[in-house]
Amino acid sequence: MSQAPYLNKQFSPGVQSLLPLYYVGWSDSVLSPTEVKLIRKKINELSFLDKADKELLYQWSDPQSPPSPELFKHWVSLIRETSKVSKIKKKKCLAELGIEMAKKSAGQEDQMKWTAPETFQALKEVEEALGLSGIDNYRNLISLEQAQEVDSSIEAADQFDINGMTDLLNDDFADTINKTKTLLKDPFFSHPNLRDKDAYRLKILDMCKAMAKQGMGAIAFPEANGGKDDMGAYIAVFESIGYHDLSLAIKFGVQFGLFGGSVYWLGTSYHHEKYLTDIGTLELPGCFAMTETGHGSNVRGLQTTATYDAKTDQIIVHTPSLEDGKEYIGNALHGHMASVFAQLIVNGENHGVHAILVPLKNKAGQLLPGIKVEDCGYKLGLNGVDNGRIWFDQVKVSRKNLLNRFGDINEQGEYSSPIENPSRRFFTMLGTLVGGRVSVPRAGLSATKTSLAIAIRYALKRRQFAPKDGEPETVLLDYPTHQRRLMPLLAKTYALHFGLLHLTNRYIHRTEEDIREIETMAAGLKSYATWFTTASIQECREACGGKGYLAENRFADLKADSDIFTTFEGDNTVLMQLVAKGLLSDFKKEFHDEGFRAVIRFITSQVGDTVSKNNPFQTRRNDAEHLLDPEFQLETFTFRERELLYSVSSRMRNYLGRRIDPYDAFLRCQVHMVNLAEAYVERVVLEQFHLKIKEAAPALQSTLKRLCDLYALHTIEQHKGWYLEQGYMQGAKTKAIRRMVDKLCKDLRYQSSDLVKAFAIPEECVAAPIVV
Amino acid sequence: MSQAPYLNKQFSPGVQSLLPLYYVGWSDSVLSPTEVKLIRKKINELSFLDKADKELLYQWSDPQSPPSPELFKHWVSLIRETSKVSKIKKKKCLAELGIEMAKKSAGQEDQMKWTAPETFQALKEVEEALGLSGIDNYRNLISLEQAQEVDSSIEAADQFDINGMTDLLNDDFADTINKTKTLLKDPFFSHPNLRDKDAYRLKILDMCKAMAKQGMGAIAFPEANGGKDDMGAYIAVFESIGYHDLSLAIKFGVQFGLFGGSVYWLGTSYHHEKYLTDIGTLELPGCFAMTETGHGSNVRGLQTTATYDAKTDQIIVHTPSLEDGKEYIGNALHGHMASVFAQLIVNGENHGVHAILVPLKNKAGQLLPGIKVEDCGYKLGLNGVDNGRIWFDQVKVSRKNLLNRFGDINEQGEYSSPIENPSRRFFTMLGTLVGGRVSVPRAGLSATKTSLAIAIRYALKRRQFAPKDGEPETVLLDYPTHQRRLMPLLAKTYALHFGLLHLTNRYIHRTEEDIREIETMAAGLKSYATWFTTASIQECREACGGKGYLAENRFADLKADSDIFTTFEGDNTVLMQLVAKGLLSDFKKEFHDEGFRAVIRFITSQVGDTVSKNNPFQTRRNDAEHLLDPEFQLETFTFRERELLYSVSSRMRNYLGRRIDPYDAFLRCQVHMVNLAEAYVERVVLEQFHLKIKEAAPALQSTLKRLCDLYALHTIEQHKGWYLEQGYMQGAKTKAIRRMVDKLCKDLRYQSSDLVKAFAIPEECVAAPIVV
Repeated sequence: MSQAPYLNKQFSPGVQSLLPLYYVGWSDSVLSPTEVKLIRKKINELSFLDKADKELLYQWSDPQSPPSPELFKHWVSLIRETSKVSKIKKKKCLAELGIEMAKKSAGQEDQMKWTAPETFQALKEVEEALGLSGIDNYRNLISLEQAQEVDSSIEAADQFDINGMTDLLNDDFADTINKTKTLLKDPFFSHPNLRDKDAYRLKILDMCKAMAKQGMGAIAFPEANGGKDDMGAYIAVFESIGYHDLSLAIKFGVQFGLFGGSVYWLGTSYHHEKYLTDIGTLELPGCFAMTETGHGSNVRGLQTTATYDAKTDQIIVHTPSLEDGKEYIGNALHGHMASVFAQLIVNGENHGVHAILVPLKNKAGQLLPGIKVEDCGYKLGLNGVDNGRIWFDQVKVSRKNLLNRFGDINEQGEYSSPIENPSRRFFTMLGTLVGGRVSVPRAGLSATKTSLAIAIRYALKRRQFAPKDGEPETVLLDYPTHQRRLMPLLAKTYALHFGLLHLTNRYIHRTEEDIREIETMAAGLKSYATWFTTASIQECREACGGKGYLAENRFADLKADSDIFTTFEGDNTVLMQLVAKGLLSDFKKEFHDEGFRAVIRFITSQVGDTVSKNNPFQTRRNDAEHLLDPEFQLETFTFRERELLYSVSSRMRNYLGRRIDPYDAFLRCQVHMVNLAEAYVERVVLEQFHLKIKEAAPALQSTLKRLCDLYALHTIEQHKGWYLEQGYMQGAKTKAIRRMVDKLCKDLRYQSSDLVKAFAIPEECVAAPIVV
Repeated sequence: MSQAPYLNKQFSPGVQSLLPLYYVGWSDSVLSPTEVKLIRKKINELSFLDKADKELLYQWSDPQSPPSPELFKHWVSLIRETSKVSKIKKKKCLAELGIEMAKKSAGQEDQMKWTAPETFQALKEVEEALGLSGIDNYRNLISLEQAQEVDSSIEAADQFDINGMTDLLNDDFADTINKTKTLLKDPFFSHPNLRDKDAYRLKILDMCKAMAKQGMGAIAFPEANGGKDDMGAYIAVFESIGYHDLSLAIKFGVQFGLFGGSVYWLGTSYHHEKYLTDIGTLELPGCFAMTETGHGSNVRGLQTTATYDAKTDQIIVHTPSLEDGKEYIGNALHGHMASVFAQLIVNGENHGVHAILVPLKNKAGQLLPGIKVEDCGYKLGLNGVDNGRIWFDQVKVSRKNLLNRFGDINEQGEYSSPIENPSRRFFTMLGTLVGGRVSVPRAGLSATKTSLAIAIRYALKRRQFAPKDGEPETVLLDYPTHQRRLMPLLAKTYALHFGLLHLTNRYIHRTEEDIREIETMAAGLKSYATWFTTASIQECREACGGKGYLAENRFADLKADSDIFTTFEGDNTVLMQLVAKGLLSDFKKEFHDEGFRAVIRFITSQVGDTVSKNNPFQTRRNDAEHLLDPEFQLETFTFRERELLYSVSSRMRNYLGRRIDPYDAFLRCQVHMVNLAEAYVERVVLEQFHLKIKEAAPALQSTLKRLCDLYALHTIEQHKGWYLEQGYMQGAKTKAIRRMVDKLCKDLRYQSSDLVKAFAIPEECVAAPIVV
């Protein structure tokens, strides 16, 4: 071998100065053709190398003839020799080490050359050009073969206060959450596992009544109506039921959140006094009859009519055709009354969608005249909820049954509303119901947490394949592919939990001014989190193999029951467009004095700011300190959001300027808008995670930081195509991010057991035989 | 406005030469900061522009002050004027048009300047630098506002021969497929919709018997045993059942493919004569008892023992512990016999895993002594299949019950095998069972086709949201987001169908030599296609909103029943690593004379070849002709596969060179290997699609080409991060790919109805009320 002769001789100082770079360059995997070109170009430019040095270094950068293991070992020993005696600085770089090696081997007469700043600078440039300027490269170099020990040190060092973490997750609602969990542990609530929908529905109804008896149904209602006026507690109860049975959660939500909520938020004292107490105790089971077969996402287009009849002083509720029947209505079979959303027509004028209370059954439980109810039958999941279809044939109710907070008919038969603009009125009425969008993703995330608890506990227990015959088989979670499957999900679950807590707090302390912003955030987080729920439970099911397919191990129900979350309370794709529209119009409004031009100028300057950071150093920078810097992470997320906002608004404006029909212009930007909405949600979640780390107890911070880093970098990794396309990052950096994600997944593996313990899911709720 | 004065004056020839570029640059959306910098630098370099020209062009490239609609319109009219009179060449570029505009407005004395090749060259460089050299840019420019007409022309022009397409999909098995479909249309086979597993299982058993009566069960068996020796037909039947009920498909597969297959492939004439006929008629229902609770993917690690007892000349089958019981075994409750996979021990020596026929029940249906069977209970899906657990307590069977094709015990109690090497013997035995991996993804793809048929037909019928009040609402499939959801799935379904046909044909015409390659391909396609099945059905369910959640609309069963396909017949993640190992060792073997070094050299030269095409022009090239060029597509796929193969093998070698434990080295490359396997499958599928287009009837080719283009470009788009990271593409190109994917989605929307018709799924099988 041509390399052999070098093994016994001392290398020149020039060659030595480059050894650390060569070592790291080759050790990761391979010198790519681009890297070869680059390194040779740089070598050629280095004035402190002589011809022989350059030839040798050229030879060592030939991908067709990689360094032999012997040569490689020789490099290592030379590097070790120097690094052992030199002071190990935390932030040392490879160029520094190279200089030290050169100095050590150079004669007295050459010492000047090796202390000259230009020499260091030239070497540093090679290091940066190769994307090797991360401090990790230095660290890895001197601790390469100690990798195993490093891992076990993580295991030992990074225990955290599990109860403290649970407290953090519980936020202000530990009491309510604990009370709900205690209740759900009661054998009365044990998983019914009923295949027959009618029996299952009755059992769920009983469970709901039992919760109501504990005062949990009325918890968000006024004290006068048996409640505690505590919307936050209501959401906490709902989230906790999510650990148990989603049919129960949805049945609970339909009765108290939707039906009760409509009476509370859209009605006035007359309705509150007359109905709320009975709703809270489930004496009066009811429905929220909004969606029609023909109109789901498009609520404004509902066809059911509520026509005021002056002669009888009544409202006539009517379904014009079969297609216009109410559909998917929860409680349809058990309910005695419904809040029916219909076009309110007074004196021939349509005032838009309003809600009217319509009795469905008499005390004896018989359907009233004009009411037709049909069972939706079996569904993919949630078979404990009695969804049905309802049609109204000229059903007459008292004028007082109009939920009249935002639109009323007086005794003279005249319509009036505190909100003049019909469009604003419509959105205000819908806006009061945003609580559903705040609650649903939290119960969905509970299902994700249960799935992760099962999949991670199983992965720490189950072994398969041994390194060698006779050795113990490997634990699943020691496989990097398995870590890659589950750890990013765990990190994102924590991230979304804090994001949803933030949304909840904004929602329960909302003011008139920020309701629009909260609606945007709720629409975005609901969509993003429920899509994540679907994807994460699927991954957990697959990660448990055949055991995950057995109904007893819970994934079947968790998957099936949560699947509809991406559709109800607003179809996710539609909601994401709503988010983008909200963002666009907020910007427009913010600058409405100056006009749209100013908006563009503002956004441009913002983007410009960030882009100015696009210098070659920044876009290639790949050291751990940089990648784990919260400021870098947030800037990167914000850049994406801003850039998408800027480009979508410019495109829109451009189309409109070219007299393209606004609807058509919107269609052309539709996919772009969904991306914008996603970037917005991801930024909000990261921001909240960073804040949460700051306010957390010091003992929790390092663990939270690791979770947050994984959420941030994994998200950036998923968008790396976009960042590279924008020139915001170079390949060296996205590759470093990939490696850092790998590392974080590996590190978190050792904490994952405690991290799912911190969810504090009662064993009675987990209830999967594979992890018992 | 400062721009207004220019509206009434003629622009200079220099400015005019750049108008087409400016128009296209602004019309897509926006000039990004990078583009602004670039365009200004280029403008500055153009010698044919004077100072005033440059100032004006600078002003027009200010993102804070985009051209006014009036100015924009003025540009358009000037461009139109020229393009109307000039000959419309198919491949004209923007620079050419610019030159024409300049010539038209320039005086006689300047004509020379505008015909000079240098001028064109300089302008062309600006065009390329901006990534605008695609012919689409020119085409779009002159037909921008005719977009709608273009669309309807596609609708009219691109009808294709639906029956011809069905024939192509049926390959050589139209008769079998049609016969099976006819059978499944019989009311006897109508969806049972039974919630109770025991009733459902009996119904499925009856259906299976009815199919056996038609000769379909024995179709792959020799004629002597009632069959037709036609494995291809067997797979076609299996695929067709996939359109109907997957419980039936799996029950059918367990009885005839797995149990029957093990007797046929692992047994010899004694077993064939004695059992095959009864297996083919379902007189003898049986199990394929391989997987154990403790060992699924790791078949070599099975714990069940089959010990030869010389004294009685019997084999004693035994389950050492509870954990070692056979699990998930299909037919466990209905079966009377099982092929039991166990460690064969003869004279104290373990010869590895072999299959032994063990009777489970007597004629009266009572369990035999020593046999314990337990129901696996309800599963996430496939509840029509009786999966169970089986334990053996010292069960004695005749020595002849050993399926002895690859390992036998003679009358003297001596073990012998035609394959000396135990490892090779093991893989040969498993290899004969690869038929399952060929069949399963085809039935899975049938479920995808049914889902797509429902989702696309619904999306062409269902309307929601109107552009304006009073106008008809928009059809779902006219939304770009909806096209983006469904059209790539449709394209990939066709791609995978042809890929799986290829695999099937390789499999049924296999020779000794290519069995390893076929196993690799089967493992890869099985994993890739079944993951796609899970993802695609999920997308279709969500695309149908609440209607998709009702059990009557089929997604519930399609999703739940196919979910386990990613796990059984080999866990996908494990199989993908098998694929990568196969690819690595094939390369190693191919060059074994020269040693591993030669392999590296070979791969490097291959990669080098492709990388040499990485010139700036190629990496930015973004015209339609290039993107739709099959050679470009295949080269791009191949580059990814080769590069990953090269880098994973180099990394491995590097780790081993540094004396890292091979198992640890493998773990470090695990994620990398899964990516390699994916790249391999994608390349194989694309290659087969290209071949299929060539051999198809000319009337089908343009439609197939469009599907193939969408599959190819959508796949590249999903990996764009990787291609950008490698420097194989520039942002301008990946953006152009995104736009082309959008366009292809839109174009296919008009053919999608016919494309799902071509699947020829019987209406009785689709059976979803939303599309009736």
